[in-house]
Amino acid sequence: MENIIFTIEKGTSKYIQIYKQFKLLIEQGDIPANDQLPSIRQLADSLRISRNTTLMAYEQLVAEGYIRGEGRRGYFVNELEAHIVKEGAISIPDQQSEPTTNYIVDFKAGSVDQANFPLKAYRRISNSVLTLQETFLYGNPFGEMCLREQIATYLLQSRGVKTNPNAIIIGSSTQQMLIHLGQILKDDFQSIIVENPGYDGAREAFLFHQFTLETLSVDETGADFSQLDDMKSRLIYVTPSHQSPIGVSMSIQERQKLIQWADKRNGYIIEDDYDSEFRYTQQPFPALASIDSTKVIYLGNFSKSFLPGMRLSYMALPEVLLNRYQNQFKYFESTSSLLSQLTMAKFMEEGEWNRHIKRMRLVYKNKMQCIVSALNKQFGQHISIIGEQSGLYVLVKIHDDRPEDWFIERASNYGVKVYPTSIYYFNNQSDVPILKLGFSNLNCDQINFGVNLLKKAWL
Amino acid sequence: MENIIFTIEKGTSKYIQIYKQFKLLIEQGDIPANDQLPSIRQLADSLRISRNTTLMAYEQLVAEGYIRGEGRRGYFVNELEAHIVKEGAISIPDQQSEPTTNYIVDFKAGSVDQANFPLKAYRRISNSVLTLQETFLYGNPFGEMCLREQIATYLLQSRGVKTNPNAIIIGSSTQQMLIHLGQILKDDFQSIIVENPGYDGAREAFLFHQFTLETLSVDETGADFSQLDDMKSRLIYVTPSHQSPIGVSMSIQERQKLIQWADKRNGYIIEDDYDSEFRYTQQPFPALASIDSTKVIYLGNFSKSFLPGMRLSYMALPEVLLNRYQNQFKYFESTSSLLSQLTMAKFMEEGEWNRHIKRMRLVYKNKMQCIVSALNKQFGQHISIIGEQSGLYVLVKIHDDRPEDWFIERASNYGVKVYPTSIYYFNNQSDVPILKLGFSNLNCDQINFGVNLLKKAWL
Repeated sequence: MENIIFTIEKGTSKYIQIYKQFKLLIEQGDIPANDQLPSIRQLADSLRISRNTTLMAYEQLVAEGYIRGEGRRGYFVNELEAHIVKEGAISIPDQQSEPTTNYIVDFKAGSVDQANFPLKAYRRISNSVLTLQETFLYGNPFGEMCLREQIATYLLQSRGVKTNPNAIIIGSSTQQMLIHLGQILKDDFQSIIVENPGYDGAREAFLFHQFTLETLSVDETGADFSQLDDMKSRLIYVTPSHQSPIGVSMSIQERQKLIQWADKRNGYIIEDDYDSEFRYTQQPFPALASIDSTKVIYLGNFSKSFLPGMRLSYMALPEVLLNRYQNQFKYFESTSSLLSQLTMAKFMEEGEWNRHIKRMRLVYKNKMQCIVSALNKQFGQHISIIGEQSGLYVLVKIHDDRPEDWFIERASNYGVKVYPTSIYYFNNQSDVPILKLGFSNLNCDQINFGVNLLKKAWL
Repeated sequence: MENIIFTIEKGTSKYIQIYKQFKLLIEQGDIPANDQLPSIRQLADSLRISRNTTLMAYEQLVAEGYIRGEGRRGYFVNELEAHIVKEGAISIPDQQSEPTTNYIVDFKAGSVDQANFPLKAYRRISNSVLTLQETFLYGNPFGEMCLREQIATYLLQSRGVKTNPNAIIIGSSTQQMLIHLGQILKDDFQSIIVENPGYDGAREAFLFHQFTLETLSVDETGADFSQLDDMKSRLIYVTPSHQSPIGVSMSIQERQKLIQWADKRNGYIIEDDYDSEFRYTQQPFPALASIDSTKVIYLGNFSKSFLPGMRLSYMALPEVLLNRYQNQFKYFESTSSLLSQLTMAKFMEEGEWNRHIKRMRLVYKNKMQCIVSALNKQFGQHISIIGEQSGLYVLVKIHDDRPEDWFIERASNYGVKVYPTSIYYFNNQSDVPILKLGFSNLNCDQINFGVNLLKKAWL
C-alpha cells in the first residue's frame, strides 16, 4: 500500500475520488485480497482530508462488497476476480443512415402543416395540464377516461360510430396497437387478409405474431371483393375511407359485402381509419364500424390530423374482444404519454379540435388543388393523378416504362425528394412507376416550384 | 317520394342534413332500389335551398354508393341490404373500477414529488420544442439521436456504462421494451429466470411471449445465486441496484458471479435499473452493464426519476442483439412521444437533469428519514423496515401472523392506503405480512400523520 499515490482533484467530491481509485486498484489486483487498507485516521492525515470523507469512501466500498470492515481490526480487501471489467459496445459503428442530401423541395408525406398548428391553444392547455395532480401519477393502462370520452363523442359525431368510452383503448401508434391486438387474436386466427398494395407497417405488425398473410389486390377502381371467397382467412385489415396508398374509398355496397363476409365467416374486420378527416370533395364517408360495430375493430389516430410526434392512437373494440383485451393487458402500463392524453382531452373538450379539423380541411384542400393543377399543367397526359379526393398526398402514375428508382433519382438530382410506392406492394414491385408526393408541410409556391423541377427532371 | 318530409334545421350544414335524411331513408328501405330521386331543381325549389346545396348532397350519396347518377335521366337509388345497421358496443357496462375511497393519506409508490418538479424549466423547454421543424415529423423508429446521445453520456458518468448512442433504443415503458426485446430473444431462449418476489410487470411481459419462468428467491439478504446452477435458463431478469420490491443491492461479488454465469451459459442478463438514481446512504452502485456490456441488456427509464406519465424508457443493447433489433424493428414507428424526447434531450443538455436528480435525492432522502423515524417511533419492535437505503418506498414487515389483507383493510378503515407486496410473489403469497409504503408525493407532516393513523389501525 505504501507506494500507491492518490490524487485528489478539485471539483468532484473527494470521497468519490478516493472510492473510485480504491475500486480500480482492487479490480486491477493492485491491492490483493485480504490486504488491510490504511486506517481511516492514517489515510485522512496523509491525504489531508477529513476522517468523515475517508469513512464515506470506505463505506461505499463496503456496501458494494469491495472491502469488509472487521470492527477494530480495520478494513480488508475482499476476494474478487481479477481483470473482470470488459469493454463493451463502445466500438459499435455508426448507424447506417441515409447520406443526408439537402433537398430544395421534399414531398414528404409523414408530416403535418406547421404554419397552421394551433400553437397558442396547445401550449396554454399543455402548460395547464402540468399543474394537475394526476399528471404526476401512472395513468390508466387502457388510456385516460377523459380522452376516451372525447373520442367516443367524436367518433359518433364525425364517423357515425356508436361506441362506449370503455370500449376505447388508447395506444401510442397503430402498429403498437396491432401488436397488442394480434396477441388476443392469434390463437383464434392464424392468417389475415391485407390489401395489396397496402400499409407496410400493418403487414410488419401482423408478421410480428407470425400471421400468414393473404393479399387482396387493390387498384384505382377499388378492391376485387370476389377474391375473398377463395381465401381461407377470417380476419381482414382494410383502409376503407382512404385506401393506403391508392386513395380509393369503399362504396356502401362494398362495405356491406365486407360486413356480410365477416358475419358469415365469424371473423373480424380491422378498419384503419387513419386520415378520414381530410376528404375534400365530399363529407368523410361513415366508418365501417358505423354499420356493424360487433364485427369491426376500429383504429384511429392523431398522427395525420394533429401531430405524428404525439404518438396518440386509439381503437374501439367489439365487446367480446374488449373483455379479452382487458384480461390480457390489465397488468400492462399504458404506452401513451399521459401529458399528451390529458392535453388532447382538454383540447377536444374546449372545441379546439373541431375548429382545428375544419381549418385544416380547408388548408389541405387548397394545397391539394395546388399540387393537382401544377401536375396537370406541367405533365398533362404524361401522368395520371391518383387519390386527389382526400388525404395529404397524391400518387403520380407515370406513363413510361422506366423504373420507379429512375424517377426518384432523377428528381433527387434536381433537388426534389419524391417517394416510392413499391414498398406498399407485397413483392415490393409495382407494374408501372407510381410516385408518392406529400404536400402537408409545403406551401403553394414550394409545391409549384417542386413540380417545375420535376418536369425538368422527368420529361 | 311525395309524402317524405324533409326537415332542415339551422346550425348544421344544409347539404349534410339532406344527405343524412336520404341515407337513412335508403337504409331503412323507405326509398326502394331503382326508385328515382327528385331532380335537383325540384328538391331545391321545394326545400327552398340552393341547387348547389342539393347537388352536394346528391354527390355525397353517389360517392358513397347509395345512389347513382344516370346523366340527364336523373338520380336513382342503388341496391342495398335492408336494415343492415346494427347497434354495437353502446351497451357495454362501465369498467369494473375500484370503489373510490377518499383516503386521508395514500402511501402510493407510483408517483413523483409534484412540489419539486422543475415546472418552469420544463415548460420553457417544451414550449420551445414546439417551434422546431422536426417536431412536426415522424421521429426515428429507435428514438431521437439527440436524446440517445444525452443518455449515453449520462450512463457513462452516473452508471459507469460505456455505450454508444446507436446502441440505445428509446421506448415508452419497460414493459413495451421487454415485449420488443422478447421478440428477438424468444427463438434462442425459451425460458427466463425472474426474481421472486419481483416486478410483476416484467413477468407479464415475458409471459406475453410464452417464456417459461424459473424463479430465483430473494430476501433481505439478497438472492441465493447457488440456485442458478440447477436452473436450465440462459436468460435472467434482475434489478441489481435496488431489488424490486425488497430493496437489496447486489454486491460486486454477486455481480461478478452473475456475469460469469451468463458468460459460461452463453446467455444474457437483463438489468432493470429502474430507480438507481435514488440511493441515500452511498453513491449509486455502478450498473452490471458497467462490468460487461456484452452480456448485459441495460434498461432504464424516467418514470421514477422524472415523470411516469412521460412514458420514456430506454435500453442499451449488446452489439449482437442491436443488429437483430434493428433488423426486426426498422419498419416499426417509435412508441415514444417525439415532444417528450426532444424536451428531455434539451433538458439534459442544459444541465437541468443533473440539477434535478441532485435536488430530488435530497428531497427524497429527507422524506425517507421522516418515514423511517415515524415508523420506528410508532411501531418499535413490532415491525422491521426493509429497503430504507434507496428508492421511493419502504417495506414494512409486521411481526404478526394476521394476513396482509387485514392490515390493508384496517388501514383503509382509518383513511390510510397502504399497498400489498404479495402481488410480487410468484404464487401471490408471502409468508409474513409485508406492506409497501410509498412517500414520494407526501410531505413530512402527511407521512407522520399517516403513520400515526396506522398505529391506531394496526396495534
